[in-house]
Amino acid sequence: MGKRVALVLAGCGVFDGSEVHEASAVLVHLSRGGAEVKIFAPNIQQMHVVDHLKGSPTEEKRNVLVESARLARGNIQDLAELKAEDFDAVIFPGGFGVAKNLCSWAVDGQNCTINEFVKSTLQAFHSAKKPIGLCCISPVLAAKVFPGCEVTVGQDKDIDGRFPDFETASAIKELGCKHICKNVNESHVDAANKIVTTCAFMCKAPLHEIFDGIGTMVAEVLKLQ
Amino acid sequence: MGKRVALVLAGCGVFDGSEVHEASAVLVHLSRGGAEVKIFAPNIQQMHVVDHLKGSPTEEKRNVLVESARLARGNIQDLAELKAEDFDAVIFPGGFGVAKNLCSWAVDGQNCTINEFVKSTLQAFHSAKKPIGLCCISPVLAAKVFPGCEVTVGQDKDIDGRFPDFETASAIKELGCKHICKNVNESHVDAANKIVTTCAFMCKAPLHEIFDGIGTMVAEVLKLQ
Repeated sequence: MGKRVALVLAGCGVFDGSEVHEASAVLVHLSRGGAEVKIFAPNIQQMHVVDHLKGSPTEEKRNVLVESARLARGNIQDLAELKAEDFDAVIFPGGFGVAKNLCSWAVDGQNCTINEFVKSTLQAFHSAKKPIGLCCISPVLAAKVFPGCEVTVGQDKDIDGRFPDFETASAIKELGCKHICKNVNESHVDAANKIVTTCAFMCKAPLHEIFDGIGTMVAEVLKLQ
Repeated sequence: MGKRVALVLAGCGVFDGSEVHEASAVLVHLSRGGAEVKIFAPNIQQMHVVDHLKGSPTEEKRNVLVESARLARGNIQDLAELKAEDFDAVIFPGGFGVAKNLCSWAVDGQNCTINEFVKSTLQAFHSAKKPIGLCCISPVLAAKVFPGCEVTVGQDKDIDGRFPDFETASAIKELGCKHICKNVNESHVDAANKIVTTCAFMCKAPLHEIFDGIGTMVAEVLKLQ
């Protein structure tokens, strides 16, 4: 019997939603691992809509659940309906949408607030001692909700110009968490908190290395009991 | 030196654009194969915008190039600028956007017209004897532009309920092409035309099998000289 895994999305597109290649990689690895997956997203308006060609915000309004449905091929539910007791684990891909729609990190940094359903979802899985997988910028959700936990967002220095967002590691430390330096092909397991993290697109790396790094995160999530 | 491959997108989302998991799978396999990739899409309005949660069209207007930029992380160019001499191969992922935005197959079936830049791109690679990779519904582009070519869109019968769109195979035959039955984990190489096809989401299969099938298509494209 495969593990039952909930995937939580934040829109569709790296600059205002879930990073599509991270979300897809998580789903490919979960499929290969025999998991039974259900996909969720909050039914809220996006913080903004970014024209991904120009890289700048537009006047448009889009809904996080409706846009996330593009990644889910329509098979998605409101995050408000997610019940932790129905699942063995939960995974959050990254993308700026996590820092814009699931919490206010993009604006408020470590003083961010977290969407109520995202927070209650994280707390419910944590309380039930069920694994939580996060990649890219998503580990800040765990850092904010579970002070003292261990996560990685890659490196805490901009090694070889591959970690331009290395200062996220400092912000995580200031939240009272431990940042573990890892490369893109690795993930870190906080066994006490059952939190598994990998840096994904926080590292400038070829896509297949990011894909493989996400594979280690998914494998660890499926292995944890 | 890696192969230089052009990827042509049709939007972002299975019901009105490129199928995101197919596009991402192509990019992962190209990355692993050491290819140097540039991404293109036509700068035209989408045929329509589908609310992927409800599955029905909305009143919104979106541009194929702008939405495709979500899959390309902003790194994309107008298809009008694609020069076949700069590349060794071209690949078209699937999704309804191919049948709606790159050609009019969704409305007109085998009597469809093909976007002028899509047609000239296909003809330029074909004339230069450079490989063309297509998956899902995209093989109809080749069937329409190159009568007599061999392609697969999976099976020509709905075997085990896994090929609900099996009638596409008949339409391809009526266009004077040869449809080769293949499973989701396989691709077909038309060596004479250098056209490589795999059925991807035309088959109801676990995502990792679709991912692997696309991997065989990408590998054959990179292998063809």
